[in-house]
Amino acid sequence: MTVTSLQTSAAELDAADPLAWCRHEFSGEVRAYLDGNSLGRPPREAAVRLAAVVEHDWGNRLIRSWDEQWFALPLELGDRLGRLTLGAAAGQTVIGDSTTVMLYKLLRAAVDAAPDGRNVIVVDRENFPTDRYIVESVASERGFTVRWLEPDPVAGVTPDLLAAALADDVAVVTLSHVAYKSGFVADLPTITEQVHRAGAVVLWDLCHSVGLLDVRLDDADVDLAVGCGYKFLCGGPGAPAFGYVAARLQDRLTQPIQGWMGHADAFAMGQGWSPGPGMRRFLSGTPPILAMIPLTASLDLIERARITTISDKARRLGRFAIEATDTLLAGHGVTVSSPREDALRGGHVTISHPAFREVTRRLWEADVIPDFRNPDGIRLGLAPLTTSFGEVLDAVASIGELLSRR
Amino acid sequence: MTVTSLQTSAAELDAADPLAWCRHEFSGEVRAYLDGNSLGRPPREAAVRLAAVVEHDWGNRLIRSWDEQWFALPLELGDRLGRLTLGAAAGQTVIGDSTTVMLYKLLRAAVDAAPDGRNVIVVDRENFPTDRYIVESVASERGFTVRWLEPDPVAGVTPDLLAAALADDVAVVTLSHVAYKSGFVADLPTITEQVHRAGAVVLWDLCHSVGLLDVRLDDADVDLAVGCGYKFLCGGPGAPAFGYVAARLQDRLTQPIQGWMGHADAFAMGQGWSPGPGMRRFLSGTPPILAMIPLTASLDLIERARITTISDKARRLGRFAIEATDTLLAGHGVTVSSPREDALRGGHVTISHPAFREVTRRLWEADVIPDFRNPDGIRLGLAPLTTSFGEVLDAVASIGELLSRR
Repeated sequence: MTVTSLQTSAAELDAADPLAWCRHEFSGEVRAYLDGNSLGRPPREAAVRLAAVVEHDWGNRLIRSWDEQWFALPLELGDRLGRLTLGAAAGQTVIGDSTTVMLYKLLRAAVDAAPDGRNVIVVDRENFPTDRYIVESVASERGFTVRWLEPDPVAGVTPDLLAAALADDVAVVTLSHVAYKSGFVADLPTITEQVHRAGAVVLWDLCHSVGLLDVRLDDADVDLAVGCGYKFLCGGPGAPAFGYVAARLQDRLTQPIQGWMGHADAFAMGQGWSPGPGMRRFLSGTPPILAMIPLTASLDLIERARITTISDKARRLGRFAIEATDTLLAGHGVTVSSPREDALRGGHVTISHPAFREVTRRLWEADVIPDFRNPDGIRLGLAPLTTSFGEVLDAVASIGELLSRR
Repeated sequence: MTVTSLQTSAAELDAADPLAWCRHEFSGEVRAYLDGNSLGRPPREAAVRLAAVVEHDWGNRLIRSWDEQWFALPLELGDRLGRLTLGAAAGQTVIGDSTTVMLYKLLRAAVDAAPDGRNVIVVDRENFPTDRYIVESVASERGFTVRWLEPDPVAGVTPDLLAAALADDVAVVTLSHVAYKSGFVADLPTITEQVHRAGAVVLWDLCHSVGLLDVRLDDADVDLAVGCGYKFLCGGPGAPAFGYVAARLQDRLTQPIQGWMGHADAFAMGQGWSPGPGMRRFLSGTPPILAMIPLTASLDLIERARITTISDKARRLGRFAIEATDTLLAGHGVTVSSPREDALRGGHVTISHPAFREVTRRLWEADVIPDFRNPDGIRLGLAPLTTSFGEVLDAVASIGELLSRR
């Protein structure tokens, strides 16, 4: 492959892209944005709807909007998110809090319901920091033990690796579906079944797969899941997270942050907390309504695009990013730190080189924006709704130029 | 007093109102809004700034905005809120999470740091539901006991009432500064000193006083406080809460929801949580940036209006609401369930009548909007930035008409 053939290839792929229309549904001007796996771009409709909600729902309807729509919004939007992106039937998904807080609540719910003798939480050393910190914090406060998996960073957490850790003392296994560094995709259905056979429950972190992969939680009989709203879901900086609890478990679980919005009758305001029906009990305080509005717009786009088309494009974008890296960057000593096999790779390709911290700084100045992850990784984030093949090539070629000039 | 003289009085008070300019800085159209103590109205600037943030900071600067401004925003906005409304020096206030979650974190921090032998949390039966539920939940999970105060609903929690509950087994006292039902203002400085003399710490809920009263946390040597952003602070539905931790306590406290944003070095992403400096350790996950934007606009207005002028107007609005109620509604059997003494009353006047559930429904249809609280209370919410004396009279007169027609 040559530079010219990569250019031809990018142009052909963009011309044939079934999601080409979608780029125009997003606002903002940027030369090459390869960080949609950290912060998705804003749907054009986001600003329009925010203005309408501020003016009409907040400004004119005022407190009446709670009765008219807001009180139900965390559950209704959760249901929609579940249907469009999680393979989750209604009544199992709720929107609210940060991912960290939602993770804390669901992990506590699982740990507090564990049978006697099951007092181990399994997690891996390559998991996202918040996940590891919450596991350690919850284990410490509840007298549980953390059993650490030590995965190869690229090969990730496999059923084989997990098998050695699954004894009859395990209460919960918590893993990321897609690894935040390498982009490795864990085998969610197989691992879920494996955890169940061992008598434990699984809590999946879907931050890097929701809105990208065709996640099928109900089919895999997943117990619990959380994920964030601001990456591939394009909900905006600090958009609220979601939590999923399988219907069969909801009545047996409670979480510790027992606030009025999770109460069986929020406006009775009586003595003593009693858990609301279904997913309502996993809410705590007043939900962040304005922060949910951009999600209503991006879900419209995801519905139109279809999640299977999105995940297809993610695979093609990744393949192309690897091809471009091999062609243009391998000669500079750049290596690919993500799985090369399509089925094992999520929405980003991580490439490594000792100069990448400095290279990232210079890329940002040139409006070419991937992100840097310690110690030497550039993540090329590939967001199918917005990323073009030309953008990928621009970023990889820019990295090559910066490395050439050193 | 007659109806005519009330009308004259309202017109004079509005003409002399030093905050009359401020009403025009808010958007939305409503005949009479008396529920700013539940959901403040939107500053005009809120929609303008949201659009600018979506377009520029999110759309164009994208992930770079985290470095450029968002990473610091929860602490910077907290400092500003502290300076303008809480009498709090910089470095003690942080914005994030819902009030319920923030309350859980700070109560856990206080309980987990309590000396041996101090295992009682004191709270009152008239406190807002979330406060009571969180106290019960935390007590239950940490093996603490709840000691209940049973205040008279109007007279509220006084130092005398509290004295009987303060023994050397008390770890934490948590109270609302302004009672959500009656509007009673607790004597924050005296009670804080009283709790300290008993060797305990105090956690104040400022939901109904922040942005309304001239709260002076540092002067009173308060330990911990929380409050919400969507009432008198006008931050929008479900706006993030704030937490205050006195500088002298910060290094001795940790909270259990240990996420990456509270870490000493969030982007090192290493093994093990280590608490960030100062207030950063009380953050958990990625903070809700969009939801903070309206607060930046309302704080501008509060700065211009000054908190002392705001609290002066609150007293005058309350006095007028009581006068109007006595004149127009007492004959229908309506009673005042809030303190009549200005210094003991916050930002709403609660009036009671058995027909008020139905009356509220009809008022809402007529675009006259107070709120209803079980079993028979209408709260006339008085938000000095936006409420006119004419609006108060309109609402009280409308209640009188509805009661006459029954």
